[in-house]
Amino acid sequence: MTHGNGSAAADSEMRWNGWGDPTKAKDLPLAVRTLLPLLLGRIRKPHPAVRLGEVQLAPSALDGGDVEALAAIVGAKHVSTDHEARVRHSGGRSTPDLLRLREPRQPAPDGVVRPRTHEEVSACLRVAVDRGIAVIPFGGGTSVVGALDPERGSHHAVVSLDLRRLAGLLRIDDISGEAVIAAGTAGPDAEAQLAVHGYELGHYPQSFRYATIGGFAAARSSGQNSAGNGRFDAMVTGIRVATPTGDVELGRSPGSAVGPDLIRVFLGSEGAFGVITEVRVRVHPIPRERVFESWTFPDFASGAEGLRRVAQDGGGPTVIRLSDESETAVGLAQVGRIGKALAKGASAVTVYEGERIAERRTRVSELLRAAGGRSAGEGASEEWLAGRFDGPYLRDSLLDAGVFCETLETATTWSNLAALKVAVESSLRDGFTAAGARSYVMCHVSHVYPTGASLYFTVLAGIRTDPLAVWSRVKAGVNDAIIASEGTISHHHAVGRDHAPWLESEIGTTGVRILRAIKRELDPAGVLNPGALIPAERGD
Amino acid sequence: MTHGNGSAAADSEMRWNGWGDPTKAKDLPLAVRTLLPLLLGRIRKPHPAVRLGEVQLAPSALDGGDVEALAAIVGAKHVSTDHEARVRHSGGRSTPDLLRLREPRQPAPDGVVRPRTHEEVSACLRVAVDRGIAVIPFGGGTSVVGALDPERGSHHAVVSLDLRRLAGLLRIDDISGEAVIAAGTAGPDAEAQLAVHGYELGHYPQSFRYATIGGFAAARSSGQNSAGNGRFDAMVTGIRVATPTGDVELGRSPGSAVGPDLIRVFLGSEGAFGVITEVRVRVHPIPRERVFESWTFPDFASGAEGLRRVAQDGGGPTVIRLSDESETAVGLAQVGRIGKALAKGASAVTVYEGERIAERRTRVSELLRAAGGRSAGEGASEEWLAGRFDGPYLRDSLLDAGVFCETLETATTWSNLAALKVAVESSLRDGFTAAGARSYVMCHVSHVYPTGASLYFTVLAGIRTDPLAVWSRVKAGVNDAIIASEGTISHHHAVGRDHAPWLESEIGTTGVRILRAIKRELDPAGVLNPGALIPAERGD
Repeated sequence: MTHGNGSAAADSEMRWNGWGDPTKAKDLPLAVRTLLPLLLGRIRKPHPAVRLGEVQLAPSALDGGDVEALAAIVGAKHVSTDHEARVRHSGGRSTPDLLRLREPRQPAPDGVVRPRTHEEVSACLRVAVDRGIAVIPFGGGTSVVGALDPERGSHHAVVSLDLRRLAGLLRIDDISGEAVIAAGTAGPDAEAQLAVHGYELGHYPQSFRYATIGGFAAARSSGQNSAGNGRFDAMVTGIRVATPTGDVELGRSPGSAVGPDLIRVFLGSEGAFGVITEVRVRVHPIPRERVFESWTFPDFASGAEGLRRVAQDGGGPTVIRLSDESETAVGLAQVGRIGKALAKGASAVTVYEGERIAERRTRVSELLRAAGGRSAGEGASEEWLAGRFDGPYLRDSLLDAGVFCETLETATTWSNLAALKVAVESSLRDGFTAAGARSYVMCHVSHVYPTGASLYFTVLAGIRTDPLAVWSRVKAGVNDAIIASEGTISHHHAVGRDHAPWLESEIGTTGVRILRAIKRELDPAGVLNPGALIPAERGD
Repeated sequence: MTHGNGSAAADSEMRWNGWGDPTKAKDLPLAVRTLLPLLLGRIRKPHPAVRLGEVQLAPSALDGGDVEALAAIVGAKHVSTDHEARVRHSGGRSTPDLLRLREPRQPAPDGVVRPRTHEEVSACLRVAVDRGIAVIPFGGGTSVVGALDPERGSHHAVVSLDLRRLAGLLRIDDISGEAVIAAGTAGPDAEAQLAVHGYELGHYPQSFRYATIGGFAAARSSGQNSAGNGRFDAMVTGIRVATPTGDVELGRSPGSAVGPDLIRVFLGSEGAFGVITEVRVRVHPIPRERVFESWTFPDFASGAEGLRRVAQDGGGPTVIRLSDESETAVGLAQVGRIGKALAKGASAVTVYEGERIAERRTRVSELLRAAGGRSAGEGASEEWLAGRFDGPYLRDSLLDAGVFCETLETATTWSNLAALKVAVESSLRDGFTAAGARSYVMCHVSHVYPTGASLYFTVLAGIRTDPLAVWSRVKAGVNDAIIASEGTISHHHAVGRDHAPWLESEIGTTGVRILRAIKRELDPAGVLNPGALIPAERGD
């Protein structure tokens, strides 16, 4: 292996109240601390976060019979009701999650259950139905849309079903280029085990170091190499799911016309229909070569035009990303560079992996130059790659400094891209202004399709009081703006609970009825992830 | 335009009791007539087919109120209960359909209704529910799996909903490369209208000259250019559907993580959930160039290995097909050549369209040569292209000569391809032998994926008596063999009524429950295509 995309094992357990490896958390670089007041005005230092031991939880609502029934399936040591396990499973890692985790009183699941096999998952779901316990499937814990909130619905208790003991490469078919991977396998572990056989999955979302194969499937993830390898959806050729009312095993063939592709019913089901236990994926030989090239465009519009031509031409780079003028200015695309150089125009990163790189690069370079691009050498792209999973660490440091930082994403057709971008930016700025806060909005394109592209926004704001309430209002305005401007409510973060109120605007009343019908059929007791994906019905 | 893929308008109305343009039907070539007794033994001439006027139908079960209610929506002249309209909508074009159409007594829908707009389709469905009329959506009438059989379920009558007045290119987005096409538009008409703007959809199934855009979507079609352009599924970016209980409009964005991709619920729904009225598709500039190259391999196994390497390498030809030794021997791959030269080995066809053809061809040639292939020039591939939509005409001529001819298809992973092929061939041969008939089985690969490929079988048999009953037994055995050998029951012909009894074997009990749940929600009265896709429940 020449590059180590997948060679690193998963990082250590995540910091309980922030992102990632606790040893990697650092203070904000001086350059950033200098930049922030320029962008956001004077910033008030927040009160310090509580320590783990200071967090107050309600007593566990699981009774002795509940614990006994679950322990009979997974073993007593794999059912936890202790304080730390409950806090560690209390939600995902959105900025609202991070803010909540700094407070003394917190919601949490009543216990954590860790099955090891598909059969144990099935049995746990049956117990949950029998005893009236809600179940929140839990993979890497990296949701940024509230998909892991410990909501119990109408049930007397709620458990987090931690799937990380369903781990490992289960089967590999060298001839067909397919691998079956247990759903609780974290990204780096899956890549490391495939690498032993010379294969790569090649799915690198920013959550890669923690998120699991099952989570990628359940949330319809899209990774940084999507230009070359496609969304995670496109990699899945089979799936195994445990539902409260029966098992599902789908994907007999690489192509089929036997009714609707029901794999797609579970991709994006976010734990509301069943628990994904195994995923069969397309794999490819580990790329032997990797070539970096950065580009500079006069502005975002010309850069987007370049990316469009590349996406419609096909067979281009493995990674292609374009930062707008605001993001380029502060160097956010390269975490190590932030604030070091105030660059002009719109910068882009391309990475080529695999076969025929020279040919592909020549062709792509022609297209990018025709759109006004200028090659800027290898450096910036290499730096981007080195820091590409480290972005989330920044949010914690910013919160420590009193700066609110959050991201959101959407997608639309190429012809609507500029209008949607303006609509979201205006909505963010106006929202913070209305709350008396200065903000700085940045945007990049990180996923391209022949017919359109994603838009990923990062916003910084100096919120003085009640950041959760302010953000909730701002985000609602942004979601309304996205719907009005014909974007999707989420390109790859999913629905969870945060986006559920906008589901009907996106897929229509009949679309929601279809999801409810499937839910009623597979999970009539409603134990699975209540309130996630599908909003509660009036009267629920 | 240099090639005319899409320039031809749709052919004239289809022959009422056979395939295609009546003026194109011809007698079997002498070479074929010479070959057949060698392959199948002495063949008994069947009794001649009835003429259209001799067909006896039961009286229409539509009452005056039914006709009036439907006419109030679509206009009186677009509701037909006459003999010819009913016969022309009595089914699809499988060989059992062709045999049935030769008989004097035939089932038929009670009438034909021709709406012109989405709103008229919706209104027709509401009338159907109110008055208890089953509705069979009808596009090009090319189903080969019984999807158009006039089954009324528990309703007092059944109408064919002919969608061909919902026709035309509705919108085109040049920047995003997307077009919205009315569902009743036939393949050639869609291509001709796109060609005016310089675009091609590039979907060429054998049914192309008659089948409609909505039919491609409803049946999850795959075309001959699938190596370059993908299955029809992969071209769809949005869909509009009228259901008996509400409209659906899906596809806000080229990529999304807003729950399951519900477009996929309607692709492959075969008219059981709703009537597709508009399809948004990805289009691309009309290819400027086309290059042909034929190949010969020592045997099917080495040819399949070559195709596997090409599919896994990516960016190869637009068309790639491989005939096995039996099909190569009789030259079936080139309709004009059948029986003219008994070739050895396994022949393959490649066609390159679009960009960078020289590069792609060089690379593919290396891979095919490495697998044992030898280039055989342009001729055979050009002949294949010229006759590629004409194959179905042969079945009628063969039936006239007393020879049963039918096709079926499946798909599996590359590692399972050889085993599945043997299982299907044995099952076909053994089945006909048990019925006392000699048979000749041919196979080709016409759709490749990184992880696997399709297998398309053509069988000729000299059945002496009751070919429908013999084929029904043989086909049941083949379906069982496909399931036992881990293939899919259909790669691109769909389920219809013929494959419905095997649906549960393919997608499992829980899979069928999901489909039934969606059906109950969208079509609680069960008026839409009763018995197609989803088998009737016990007690239905």
